[in-house]
Amino acid sequence: MSTPRILIVFSSLFGANSSLGALAQSALTDAGAEVRIRRVREVALPSDVQPAAQNQPLADADDLAWADGFVFTSPSHTGLLSASIKAFIDEHHDAAVAGHYFNKTFTAMATAAFAHSGQERVVDDLNAVGASWGCILVPPSTASATMNKLDGNPYGLSFVLNHGQIPDPAIAREVLNEHLGRFAAITRAVAPLRGRDGASD
Amino acid sequence: MSTPRILIVFSSLFGANSSLGALAQSALTDAGAEVRIRRVREVALPSDVQPAAQNQPLADADDLAWADGFVFTSPSHTGLLSASIKAFIDEHHDAAVAGHYFNKTFTAMATAAFAHSGQERVVDDLNAVGASWGCILVPPSTASATMNKLDGNPYGLSFVLNHGQIPDPAIAREVLNEHLGRFAAITRAVAPLRGRDGASD
Amino acid sequence: MSTPRILIVFSSLFGANSSLGALAQSALTDAGAEVRIRRVREVALPSDVQPAAQNQPLADADDLAWADGFVFTSPSHTGLLSASIKAFIDEHHDAAVAGHYFNKTFTAMATAAFAHSGQERVVDDLNAVGASWGCILVPPSTASATMNKLDGNPYGLSFVLNHGQIPDPAIAREVLNEHLGRFAAITRAVAPLRGRDGASD
Amino acid sequence: MSTPRILIVFSSLFGANSSLGALAQSALTDAGAEVRIRRVREVALPSDVQPAAQNQPLADADDLAWADGFVFTSPSHTGLLSASIKAFIDEHHDAAVAGHYFNKTFTAMATAAFAHSGQERVVDDLNAVGASWGCILVPPSTASATMNKLDGNPYGLSFVLNHGQIPDPAIAREVLNEHLGRFAAITRAVAPLRGRDGASD
Repeated sequence: MSTPRILIVFSSLFGANSSLGALAQSALTDAGAEVRIRRVREVALPSDVQPAAQNQPLADADDLAWADGFVFTSPSHTGLLSASIKAFIDEHHDAAVAGHYFNKTFTAMATAAFAHSGQERVVDDLNAVGASWGCILVPPSTASATMNKLDGNPYGLSFVLNHGQIPDPAIAREVLNEHLGRFAAITRAVAPLRGRDGASD
Repeated sequence: MSTPRILIVFSSLFGANSSLGALAQSALTDAGAEVRIRRVREVALPSDVQPAAQNQPLADADDLAWADGFVFTSPSHTGLLSASIKAFIDEHHDAAVAGHYFNKTFTAMATAAFAHSGQERVVDDLNAVGASWGCILVPPSTASATMNKLDGNPYGLSFVLNHGQIPDPAIAREVLNEHLGRFAAITRAVAPLRGRDGASD
Repeated sequence: MSTPRILIVFSSLFGANSSLGALAQSALTDAGAEVRIRRVREVALPSDVQPAAQNQPLADADDLAWADGFVFTSPSHTGLLSASIKAFIDEHHDAAVAGHYFNKTFTAMATAAFAHSGQERVVDDLNAVGASWGCILVPPSTASATMNKLDGNPYGLSFVLNHGQIPDPAIAREVLNEHLGRFAAITRAVAPLRGRDGASD
Repeated sequence: MSTPRILIVFSSLFGANSSLGALAQSALTDAGAEVRIRRVREVALPSDVQPAAQNQPLADADDLAWADGFVFTSPSHTGLLSASIKAFIDEHHDAAVAGHYFNKTFTAMATAAFAHSGQERVVDDLNAVGASWGCILVPPSTASATMNKLDGNPYGLSFVLNHGQIPDPAIAREVLNEHLGRFAAITRAVAPLRGRDGASD
């Protein structure tokens, strides 16, 4: 398979994960992947908030079926996944149990306002979803000097926001390029196990 | 304080957590607590499902303010909290950060169809919410022969469903009586730290 | 009970947790507690390292029996508890299952060189031990402006080391004073549940 | 690469994980892998216990370097990894950070006497170690009827012991054959990313 297909699914109330998704899209495209980027429907919206990225397309079952690999990114809300991305996951549980996502690849990202308030737990819970689905998990590790520029979250790329923004986009790009480049390569290597071995089809 | 006030919040699509909540209500009433039992709004409802317990009242900010202690119970959906109970948690995040639930007590319960598919993780994530809120956590332990009749989940009472039902209600009652009796006693003991020390009050 | 008895158990290879334990001891003494501070035996010692604090007494079964509440503090080694503090926990498993620590209080602390490399997971795993033992858990929350000076770890106080040292001891003292003062008060409030209600005693 | 090299590392006090390791060895050999099976040194041994499998060789740095993929298996002690397997992990932390295990594969297994007492947490903590090391994680999923014969632990194969023994060895073999066959295939597919692409070299 020359071109792995990667689906980025993000939940974004105020825009940080929408921006992060766009950076990930760019990194994956540079790595030779075909990329779809999709938001989830907001289910717990404060009445005075207009959610970010509402003009972007919603993720659906076809996107999940199309992809060889998944990048999920969520804010930390009360230290856990947003309810909105959880609702998306719940809605596709039956397809997951039926094995539709088996041996696809998975990596997780998170954002939060504080350094410790659930960033480990958000990516850990996302990884648990990937595990349930039968995905092959690709966490970033602490075994890379580049990854450690993000202060060493081995379980998923995580970003401490600065006034709601991804800080230092140059570092974010460098880290995303390295990690998602690796992610695309692993996705390419395992796709033949699912019978995906031709051209991008 | 003679009478601790306990709020039971449950998420129930097919009815198991509604039944479990009712058993908990009975155990807490027997332990001398004043009890409210409330459901959360369903946010990720399959179109062909009529949710259980829709005639029961919805939990709201007043219930959270009223209570001295919280019992949260969720099914395991893809190994995590239901999206619906997460939406309820998200909607009360600001009050939590403002300290409204500080030094209240908290205990978690879960149900799932399989023995291992997230029952530890669901109560662990609920406990993480209680921790974020500043609650005092009361997990059931493995240090009790009664608790271990539920096969030893030390982090929260968890129930492996049998065709969607709580199995062996007699054991469920015995375990709930012991654990929630302890929970009520601890809630009573710490309430004076919040200035709750008169009659009920 | 006028004077709660608190046991601090620390694991320290290079000294950070030994220093942190001493700061905790000071905060607890100021809060009116009677304090013992004890190290654990090192079990996975690099051959060229002389462990910190080897002249301090080792924690033993008598210390665990004596205490009304526990403060456990561990470095993050490969993102988890040190093997040394885990060995101490394993060695007292039978007493825990027999209920010797039931209804005692528990809070967890951690240190690491990076912001995200297991600091949530270390305190979470320590809390899981407290839960297994039947302890009442007192995590610090995100519901306090003081706690959030440590960048918002709601599950346990955690410290990102600066060249192996606790950074900014003034903030560390402020945070420890507030959290451990609360911990001592809760320990005092629940001790009568264990029949500990006289003077100290 | 025709023959993936898999290292099984087990911690076994009373023998269950030694038996489980032997079953895994058999399943991996049948799947065409070259297998080493190694125990860890016991570090928290009760004085009256003769550890199981002490005549088997100890895992060392050379074994970790040799392998293309890792199977780690631990009992649940107080709901977490055994101290002994944690000591082994701690002792190889520097090599892990230096990237020696980057892009190798990893899967986790656990045993416990109770259904819920840490079996999710043990494999989750082992997976966290694999993530820190830069490994590609292969959890078993809930998307397989065979895996669910073990009652649905999606994060790692886990076994509820019956009087200290792996129950129903026929089911254990079936589950291990399916999961470790998949694990060997994924290990083979990703090995070229590490320059391991010839014959078994």
